[in-house]
Amino acid sequence: MAASVTIAIDAMGGDHGPSIVVPGADIAAGRFPAARFILVGDETKIRAELANLPRLAQRATVIHTDVSVRMDDKPSQALRAGRYKSSMWVAIEQVKSGAAQVAVSAGNTGALMAMAKVCLKTVPGVDRPAIAAIWPTLRGESIVLDVGATIGANKNELVTMAVLGAAMSRCMKGLERPNLALLNIGVEEVKGVEEVREAGQILRELNLPGMNYIGFVEGDDLGQGMVDVVVTEGFAGNIALKTAEGTAKQIGTWLKAALSSSIMSKIGTVFAAGAFRALKSKLDPRNSNGGVFLGLNGVVIKSHGGTDALGFASAVDVAHAMVSADLIARIAQDLATTGAMRTSQGTSET
Amino acid sequence: MAASVTIAIDAMGGDHGPSIVVPGADIAAGRFPAARFILVGDETKIRAELANLPRLAQRATVIHTDVSVRMDDKPSQALRAGRYKSSMWVAIEQVKSGAAQVAVSAGNTGALMAMAKVCLKTVPGVDRPAIAAIWPTLRGESIVLDVGATIGANKNELVTMAVLGAAMSRCMKGLERPNLALLNIGVEEVKGVEEVREAGQILRELNLPGMNYIGFVEGDDLGQGMVDVVVTEGFAGNIALKTAEGTAKQIGTWLKAALSSSIMSKIGTVFAAGAFRALKSKLDPRNSNGGVFLGLNGVVIKSHGGTDALGFASAVDVAHAMVSADLIARIAQDLATTGAMRTSQGTSET
Repeated sequence: MAASVTIAIDAMGGDHGPSIVVPGADIAAGRFPAARFILVGDETKIRAELANLPRLAQRATVIHTDVSVRMDDKPSQALRAGRYKSSMWVAIEQVKSGAAQVAVSAGNTGALMAMAKVCLKTVPGVDRPAIAAIWPTLRGESIVLDVGATIGANKNELVTMAVLGAAMSRCMKGLERPNLALLNIGVEEVKGVEEVREAGQILRELNLPGMNYIGFVEGDDLGQGMVDVVVTEGFAGNIALKTAEGTAKQIGTWLKAALSSSIMSKIGTVFAAGAFRALKSKLDPRNSNGGVFLGLNGVVIKSHGGTDALGFASAVDVAHAMVSADLIARIAQDLATTGAMRTSQGTSET
Repeated sequence: MAASVTIAIDAMGGDHGPSIVVPGADIAAGRFPAARFILVGDETKIRAELANLPRLAQRATVIHTDVSVRMDDKPSQALRAGRYKSSMWVAIEQVKSGAAQVAVSAGNTGALMAMAKVCLKTVPGVDRPAIAAIWPTLRGESIVLDVGATIGANKNELVTMAVLGAAMSRCMKGLERPNLALLNIGVEEVKGVEEVREAGQILRELNLPGMNYIGFVEGDDLGQGMVDVVVTEGFAGNIALKTAEGTAKQIGTWLKAALSSSIMSKIGTVFAAGAFRALKSKLDPRNSNGGVFLGLNGVVIKSHGGTDALGFASAVDVAHAMVSADLIARIAQDLATTGAMRTSQGTSET
């Protein structure tokens, strides 16, 4: 399948639209010489960008749309105004029709998820799709899901997310049984974490072939990368993701201020420039851009809205990797296995 | 009241017990020349430490207990085995009897909260006490609550926590109307955040005299310090706190590795040593140690279990500040005002 990946791109998504998205697609075109692109949006604007990007131009088709989803549209508004005719919808529709294998958008998350659900539908065994983030850690990258779609997920939804996340990890890293944990808090015997505890019990009893369930981790374990996949409900997951991003930014600001505070530290900064470049690259959110929507009949990737062309290209990297590893087929197979094992072990009652 | 603060200390709490806690109390004794201390725990071990600390020794009394709560005891176990007779319980009891104005423990959080609730009881208008963390930000310190006690807090509990947190902020910073926000996620119209949205509506309608409610913030706003107080339910709050701590540690590890990666960067590090010391101090968790239990008939402070003497002294700093500013009286007054306003504005029905 990797030989002929076609990637549908919502060219109007994000804070900057075609001026960032189309050059980002061009960077991706350089990385994946066999990939083809469908660019959806305002044709005049897209063609203006393509005029300077011959490499992308010769492998891209353009589909014109008049409507764009705004970054602050509510999901219901976006669906009312943009169903069938917005660049976001039409990009997703390319996946449904089979014209493309994956859709990428930097548009607003709520609208993208709503449209993806309505257009592609969830796969059997999944009620609520999840958003998986790629989390940079001390030991490479982990997958953390859900980061905003499944607020208040119950134990069965957590178990399903574990199956989805493990399948994605196997696609990303080629591991046979990625280590997987549930995110929890250290306080015992308190109200409200029953769903997490019960999900853990189910995962332990099932002992699924596609993952190695290792138990609970806490928020401070996320950055250590001790596990390949961390599963949590969407409210806490979104807050964890944003808090980590905010803390990295905060420390970067402190570091910059400290280093420019005296002549001596400025001299030191010159000597250590290489080291700071290495650190900056590790902290660069553009290098781990791309939230993966899991549980749908098709792959949809969300790029950060405020990213630049390089960051958008990272989201396309993720898209290409998921399609090349045949994520959807793996998920279908793993969900079927899980369902059969839950039925036979009697852990599937709610 | 500040003239004669007496601080009860659970000398057996934390990973290291008296060998850290008693020297920590001595550092605090140096900072607060008028303060008195009640050290509770194994008298032999405490006296052995006091032998080298004459400054503390002459202002401390010792209460012997045979029982210590272990760091991994569940709250119910701790209560069964340690009620009336553990160092943790007896330290809290000093606050109840009036012998001390505040209790400080580095022991396990769940046990400390359980004992504090049973011994001191909650104040009228509060069902579930909260734990407030002091969060280092780009603009000084913010207060974030709850970080682990009120899992799944509902809208009324969130409103009450706002009142508690604002009172604490006024004690800490002397502001008349601290800026306060609710922690939320950016996705609109999703299931499960109704409690947060409704709490926001109540706070906006009430327009309480003790706070300036400014709306929602997200996880990445925490480190920016745009508000004085951030309110959230305990599960997400605990995960936010731990994630921020873990991210800071992760970046510190990356920074160290980058700086020792070449001769040039090592030379740079020597020149910039002052800058790194300044950054290290900002990131030092010992400088913002001390979770404040809010909503009880008395002040209880939780120190990190793994901290050293300097870190424990920071927790005592917080204890001293809360007592000096008469936190309990302020909270009682603010809760009464809030209750009266909610009744008159009709926002108090559940």
